[in-house]
Order: sequence, then structure tokens, then C-alpha cells
Amino acid sequence: MSILFVKHQSKLNSALEACAKRYAWSAYSESPSSKVHGADVPVNGKANFEAMLNKEFSLDMPGEIGRTGCEVSPYLQTRLGISYPKLDLDLLLPAVSSAMLKWADAPRDVRMGICLEILHQCSEQLFENAYATMHTAGQSFIMAFAGSGANALDRGLEALAYAQKAIQDVPETAIWERKFGEGALIKLQKTFTLRPRGVSVVICCATFPLWNAYPALMASLVTGNPVILKPHPNAILPVALLVRVCRGILQEQGFDPNLVTMVADTPQEPATIPLLTRDEVAIVDFTGSPQFGAWIEDNCNKASVYTETAGCNSVVIESTHDLHAMASAIAHSLCQASAQMCTSVQNIHIPAQGILVNQQQVSFDAVANAIKAAVDEQLSDPKKAAFLCGALVNDKVQSTIDHYRELGASRAKILRDSSPYQHPEFSNARTATPLILQVSNHDHDLYQKELFGPISFIIKGNNADTCLSSAAEDSAQFGAITAHVYSKSQQYIDKATTAFIDAGASVAFNLVGMPINFAAAYSDFHVTGLNPSGNACLTDLSFVANRFRIVQQKRMFN
Amino acid sequence: MSILFVKHQSKLNSALEACAKRYAWSAYSESPSSKVHGADVPVNGKANFEAMLNKEFSLDMPGEIGRTGCEVSPYLQTRLGISYPKLDLDLLLPAVSSAMLKWADAPRDVRMGICLEILHQCSEQLFENAYATMHTAGQSFIMAFAGSGANALDRGLEALAYAQKAIQDVPETAIWERKFGEGALIKLQKTFTLRPRGVSVVICCATFPLWNAYPALMASLVTGNPVILKPHPNAILPVALLVRVCRGILQEQGFDPNLVTMVADTPQEPATIPLLTRDEVAIVDFTGSPQFGAWIEDNCNKASVYTETAGCNSVVIESTHDLHAMASAIAHSLCQASAQMCTSVQNIHIPAQGILVNQQQVSFDAVANAIKAAVDEQLSDPKKAAFLCGALVNDKVQSTIDHYRELGASRAKILRDSSPYQHPEFSNARTATPLILQVSNHDHDLYQKELFGPISFIIKGNNADTCLSSAAEDSAQFGAITAHVYSKSQQYIDKATTAFIDAGASVAFNLVGMPINFAAAYSDFHVTGLNPSGNACLTDLSFVANRFRIVQQKRMFN
Repeated sequence: MSILFVKHQSKLNSALEACAKRYAWSAYSESPSSKVHGADVPVNGKANFEAMLNKEFSLDMPGEIGRTGCEVSPYLQTRLGISYPKLDLDLLLPAVSSAMLKWADAPRDVRMGICLEILHQCSEQLFENAYATMHTAGQSFIMAFAGSGANALDRGLEALAYAQKAIQDVPETAIWERKFGEGALIKLQKTFTLRPRGVSVVICCATFPLWNAYPALMASLVTGNPVILKPHPNAILPVALLVRVCRGILQEQGFDPNLVTMVADTPQEPATIPLLTRDEVAIVDFTGSPQFGAWIEDNCNKASVYTETAGCNSVVIESTHDLHAMASAIAHSLCQASAQMCTSVQNIHIPAQGILVNQQQVSFDAVANAIKAAVDEQLSDPKKAAFLCGALVNDKVQSTIDHYRELGASRAKILRDSSPYQHPEFSNARTATPLILQVSNHDHDLYQKELFGPISFIIKGNNADTCLSSAAEDSAQFGAITAHVYSKSQQYIDKATTAFIDAGASVAFNLVGMPINFAAAYSDFHVTGLNPSGNACLTDLSFVANRFRIVQQKRMFN
Repeated sequence: MSILFVKHQSKLNSALEACAKRYAWSAYSESPSSKVHGADVPVNGKANFEAMLNKEFSLDMPGEIGRTGCEVSPYLQTRLGISYPKLDLDLLLPAVSSAMLKWADAPRDVRMGICLEILHQCSEQLFENAYATMHTAGQSFIMAFAGSGANALDRGLEALAYAQKAIQDVPETAIWERKFGEGALIKLQKTFTLRPRGVSVVICCATFPLWNAYPALMASLVTGNPVILKPHPNAILPVALLVRVCRGILQEQGFDPNLVTMVADTPQEPATIPLLTRDEVAIVDFTGSPQFGAWIEDNCNKASVYTETAGCNSVVIESTHDLHAMASAIAHSLCQASAQMCTSVQNIHIPAQGILVNQQQVSFDAVANAIKAAVDEQLSDPKKAAFLCGALVNDKVQSTIDHYRELGASRAKILRDSSPYQHPEFSNARTATPLILQVSNHDHDLYQKELFGPISFIIKGNNADTCLSSAAEDSAQFGAITAHVYSKSQQYIDKATTAFIDAGASVAFNLVGMPINFAAAYSDFHVTGLNPSGNACLTDLSFVANRFRIVQQKRMFN
């Protein structure tokens, strides 16, 4: 048994058990506290990040023909000044393909051990990763440490657990004996060899650079495929840090480091389509916009394609026991990471006649205003606002806000206007508080698509049933990663369950007192694959089972 | 627990164990002997088949707008005279989609119980199926009974076993508890609902009508998808018999029988492409020609596509202990079902300098002649020839033979000529014995594709190593479902193992004394998905895991 496998085996077993029972569990600490990490690690992490600024990030990959990268910190609005290798794909792809040969032949536990070690070493650079994520993706430090750090690593470990199930489902050998008619007993020894599919490309997104990178990388690499990571041009550094860890471990363990490479680019000179259209590409993982996701699903049909895009996540309010708790939970989703999360809610459906709160009728306006007030409350302390909202990943998000402020002024009611908030630490941070537009369900052209960033709609529906059917139909047609329903009526909850199940959308009921955007590794099946918000799930068996194939040898006993 | 599930549970458990251990096991009897079935069942089966001839086959499906079908018995070369419903897809598809609703909501064990009962009731009409297969696909009675009957049913049960693993991997409920920061303990109840993908289309082939139909039907149906079977126009009756069983059981169990329907057609008025290009189609299973398989892989990219096509299956001979046994094993493959099987060998590579037989050098010509002689020996008794070869499925196979006889005469050496053999029972049977052409490896344009039917090549290679590399390279480039190597040299066997693994082709060593075409359910992984002979495997987790998706509900405890 490989030493690295033995080193991490109990963690893998815990992950397998958590996936089976789906209780709350994490292999990595979410807290950046020095009580957990000691005094030096946080300080060194920050120093290491700062030492990378305005330098060449060296990765020593094949086909380097120059340097690229133009990341801008959303907090400083200045360039990070880090350059990354610019690669010639004609030189890179053959090197990547040839790296696969020895890796494909490695024993199963060797590959698994190395993948577990990669996650482990990444967990030792969570502070570096957090600063890198802040200053590229615009997340707050705490979100960058937990959501893009520990929680994302958990998704990677979860993918390894599922891969382990799929791998272990194929025995390595078998003996097969039978007679044919009157003939002699035939005895065959069979050997089943797992083989990779080919080059795997992982396209990472701008706001959560490693959220799908860890699971996709782990799922492909552990099953024998070399992986090319393609970071978003906005957010290369977190990916580069991961790639450096992978290459170091692979080389140290006697494998070709070109099993994990990175193709960085700039918006001016994009490299994604040239990479995706290479014949060698057998697997594509994508997180990003629905438009580009659809392009990949349509155009990369020689490859297995796994997408997570976005949709118009909805809230449907029918009744509640606690208006303030509900409004706070919804407001948290509108604020968190400036609603740049795939689980952020956007479309809040409230019946025109209002809702029951503890058996008391409360008007539509009162419910809408409670949500607005809850947003204001959460942003009242600049420190907490910064903690919650972080910064906008790029200027496009601000442009969308500006556009919808204009649309709102002419076509709807601006229930809450967006403006920058003053970041206590970074005076130049690109920030914006939530824009909330009040519309009717006749304004569906405004809200029947994902608007990336802190823009949401309070939609006045005819009644609770039409609120529900609108939300469910929009989920089916335009996609939804999450949906929330607030209701104290069991009958309504049952109806909503059916409506969202039929729409192929996951739904949560009456979540309060917690960040409702939270998706738990090992427990929440993230993305159903049944609506336009993506075709793959983090993580189920189908996410891993087709990343390898089985080649069989039979030998007759002499 | 559903009654039907309980009734068949032990069979499912046995299948699960067989898949895990991959030993020889079958749930259904391969023998048509009246010792097994009693005196009446075989007689009644034949009578039931004969009673269907020259009649309307009624299935009472929605959208029937006329009758279709023009099957011709390869044994009688007369029409069966059976007509089947001709369906209007615009009427059929909505009915099929609406049948899904209640089925999707059925408990897991209810669906599994019904699927197991379908296989069981099909096992009670194996005689009807055997005669139907003979007089459509041209198989011999014994092959039709075993290969297209019991063995195919085993593949269906195997698919259910894999589906059961994938289904059971998703728990139905979970409790999830954690604190966020200083907040209260949050407790969520989670429910995980399996949902179907949509309409599943199964395209069956001409020569083994149910070989992929059972596994594809079972994999899709048990996971909640309605299935439309599209039989080959040559071989509708076996599929119609299956569809009748499915519809009867579904109706009896309170479900919509339109969960399983059949779109029959004729070569003159083909219905496959109009069916495949319907928006409702979410899953496609295909067995048939590489050309049409490639069309589907390229054009049905909105659906999950599972293909098994064909390749140029090879034999590489380096050495043997027993020339006669080896030649007989190869000859058996050239004769069996007139080499109309996906596992039939076609390209036999022999080194120019001959081979070692028990340390004695035997010339190329002597090895080639031993194979020819073994074919002649197996066909010397007309009864055995009929048993082994059956009939040609259609005139196209004879045309291919005629074409290659001409090519062989002008460009190669006809080592063994093809001619009809006299069938002892059916004087008008469409029969042909194997055509064997001797060529050099310069004639690769002749043999680097599948020639459907009893046409094979003995290819003179420069030496054993070039024989191996040619066979492996052709497997990778043109596809291979099986490959055989005969060698007593461990070094050569190791080299061949590596070469075929790298080519993504399964390989068997030194098989003698058994039908080498045989692929065992629960043990052999049939088709690797790594070369052009198909993208799916009978059966592994990836064959089933993406036929359903998971929708989640979370509820907060009050």
C-alpha cells in the first residue's frame, strides 16, 4: 500500500462515511483563527502572498513562449503585477498526453495517495490562497478562507470519495469457470485494468476559482487523466498556487509534473476555445456563465462535459412564524459575497395580498420593507458589511448594476438603491450594496435570467400559488441551483416540494439563522443537472464514473 | 417493500454478488431441453410463434396511424406477414412523456420489482423469442435460445444490479446539524429524490435484437425513464414480444403502459432519425453500424448517448502448444452465427516465418491451412454446420461476400472460398460458409474496417512483433470489441497486454475448447469505450449512473 495512501486513509474513510450518511462533517478547518493555526502560519501566509506580487510566477511548464496575466485586485483596483507562463498549445498538449502514460499505469492506491496529499498540502496554504482569492475574486478574507478554502477542499475530498467508490466497484482480478456443453471445465483468469479517458480540461470561474477546480481536478486525476487548469483571467493566482503544489508532489513521487498544468490568459487574448477544441481533450469541467456553458455543451461533443453555470434562484414566501428572521436570512443571501455566488437568490416572489406571519396578515409592502430593512441592518456596521459583501470581481458587475438602476427607475420601483459602501481597510475597494427592484410578474423579461452581482427582484404575484408556479417554471426554463420557500402550511410545503421536484430544482424550506447560500460538501447534492443551471452534480457517482474505462484481459489456465 | 421486489430480491442479490466477484453465474437456463422446461413449454412456444405469422401484432399504443413491417425469414426467404403499429410521433411522444410522471414518483423498490418481473416473464417466453429471433435475425435455434435469450436476459439483470448500486448509493434522507459561528445549532432534514432524465430511445440491431435492448431498457426504466424501443426493420418481432410483456406488467401494476413503446418501421420508410431528433429524447442507446453510431454521437449531443458498434476484431498468433485446438477455436469464431456477432474475429495476423508449436517451427502456410481445415471440419456435418452458422440476416451480407470474393481473386489469395451450405431443415435458407482471404499487411485497405458477415483475413506479418503492433494499432484506430492472442511466451504475452491496454482494447490469451466469441454477463466488461467500437460498456457504473439525477429538499426543524 502506498505510503501517502496510508497517511490519509482514515480521512478518506471518514469522507466515505459522511457521503453515505450525509451528516455535517469537514476535513479542514474553516476558521482562520490563530488559536487553530498558531501565530506564525497566518502571518507567513500573508507575507508569502505579498512576496508574490509584481513578480514572475514560475511553473516550469513545457511550451512557455512568453508571459501573460493582468489580474487587478478588486480591493486595491491596481494590478497584482504577477505574470504567468504563456504556453504554446502545440507544445503543451503532446507533453501532457505523454505524462499520462506512466500515471495511467500507476497502482490505484498510488494515484489516490498522491491526490489526498495534494489536498493536504493545499490545506497548508489556505492563508496564501485566501489572500490570493481576495485580491482576484474580490471575496472577503473570511469567505476566501472558508468558502474558497476549507469548503472547496472538502468538495475535492468528496470527489475523491466518490471516485474511490467507482474505482473499488471494479475488482482487479477474477477467476471464471464453467463448462460449455459436454466440453471440459474452462477456467479463465481475468484482469480488469482501469484506463483514463484522455486530457481533462478544467475551466475555473472568476469568483470561486477553486470551488469546482478541486473536485474536477481530483475526479480526473485520480482516475488517470492529466489535467489542464484554465483559470479565469481575473483569478489566476489561486489556481497557480494549486498547480504548483500538484506539480511539486507529482515530481517528488516520481511522476511527470505535466500531469497538472495551467493555461493562463488575458481577456484580450483568450485561450479557452483554442484549448477546448483540441482533439486530445476528452473531459471538460466548466463553471461559469450559462452562455459559455451552453456553447461547450453544444460544441465539445467529443468530450464528456460537466457544467455548472447559473440560474435565477428564487425565494417564494407564503407564510412564516418570524418575519425578522426570515427577512434576515434572505438579506444575508442578497449581501453575501455581493451576490456573486451560484447559490445567491435573485427573484423573491411575494403574494400581492401579503402573507401570514404567526396567523396575522402582513401586507406585501411590509414584507418587502422587512427584507430591505434587514439588508440595511446587515450593512450598518462597515466592518460587518465588508466581512459579508467583499468586493465586486470586476467592472462588469458595476455596469450591470448601473443598467438595472436605470431600468428600475423607468420600469419598476427601486425598493433599495445600490451604492458603494466604504470598506474600512481598503479605501479604493470596488464595492456595491444590494440593488432591490420591486416588479410585478409582468416584468419577467427583467428577471428571467441570472444577473450576476447584487441585483434582486421582489416580484408581486397574484397569490401564493402563482408565486410558486412562476418560481418553479422559471427554474425549469431558465435554471436554478437553489430555491427557497418560506411557509408554515404543510399543504403548501407539499405543493412546493412537488412543483420544484417536477422542475428539477432543489428546494429548501424555512431556512433561518444560517447563511442560506451555504452548500455542504458530503451532504448537499449541488446542481441537479435537470435544469439549465448545469448538467453535473457535486458530487454523485455520475460525476466520476465515466472519467475512466475498463480494459479486460482474460487468460486461460494451462 | 413491493411484492414483486420481494419475489425477485434473492435473484438481484445473486446478480450483485456475481458482478462483484465476476465468477460464472446465470439466472436463466441456456438449455432449451425439455428436461429443463418440461414437454409442453417448447411445443407451445413454437405453436405460439407460428400463430403470430401473417397476423396483426396488436400493442394498443397511442398514435397508431396504420400498420408497418416487412420482415423476411432468413430461413424461408418469405415474409413473416406480421404487421405492427405504425405510430405518429407527434401523438406518441406526449403520451410517453406523460406516462413518466407517475412512474418517476414510484418508490424505488416498486420500479425495481416491476423490472425484475419483466425479465422473469420474458424468461417464460424464451421459446417464442428463439423462433422469432431465428426467423428475423437468422440465428440458429440454439443460439437464438441461449445467446439472444438467456444470455441477453442476464445482461438485463446485470444492468439492474448496477442500477441498484447507483440508486442505493443515494440515501433517501439525512439529518444535518451544525453551528455557524456563535449562532444556534442548525438542524436540517434532507430528502434526496431520484428523478429521471426523460425519454429513452433504444435502437436495437438486426442480428441480436435484444442483446442491448434488455440492459438499456432495464437501466433506463428502473431509473424512472420511459423507453421507446426502435427495432431494426429486419427484426421487429423479438422486440414486439418484449414490449408486450412490459406493457402488460406495467398496466397490471397500475402504471401507464406507454412507459414502454415500440416504433417499428421498414427500410423504405425509416423512422429512426425522426425519432432521435425529437426534443424529448434525453437518452439514446444504440447497437449497430459504426457509421450510424458515429452519426448519433455527433448529432444527439443534447442526449446521453451509449453506443456499441463494431470494429476489426483481431487474432495474433505467436506460438501455441496445440495447433489443432487453437485452429478450432479460431474457426469456431469464423463460423459462429456466420460471423455476424460483435465478438466475431476478422483479422488473423500470422508471422511470415510461421510460429512455434511445442517448440517446433511450423510454417505460415501450415498455420493458415490448419485454420482453413478446422473450418471445413466444423462444417462437415450439415446438422452441426446449421447449428453453428445459422443463416445470413439479409442479402447485404451475401453482397459483401460476393464483393470480397472478387477482390480476393484479383488482389489476394482466396484461402477458403465461401458457398452456401445445405441447411438440413430449411432448404431455402440464406446461408454462406466463411470466406477466408490471405493477404499481406500492405493490403490494409481491405481489412481495416468491419466487414459484417463470414469474411476474414489471414494477414502475413513480417514477424510476431509487427503482427502485434498492426493488430493493436488497428484496434485503436478502427475499433475492436475483442482481440485474441495465442502465445506461450510470457514475454510476448506481457508485450501484448501492454499493447492492447494502450490501444484501449480488451484481449484474451490462448482461449481453446470454448466458443471464443462468448461474452459473459456479470463477468466480462463488454466494450471498453476507449476505441471506435462504442462508447459504453455492458455493464459498469457509468452505464447507469447518469440515467437519473438527484433533487434535494432541505427543511429546517422547527
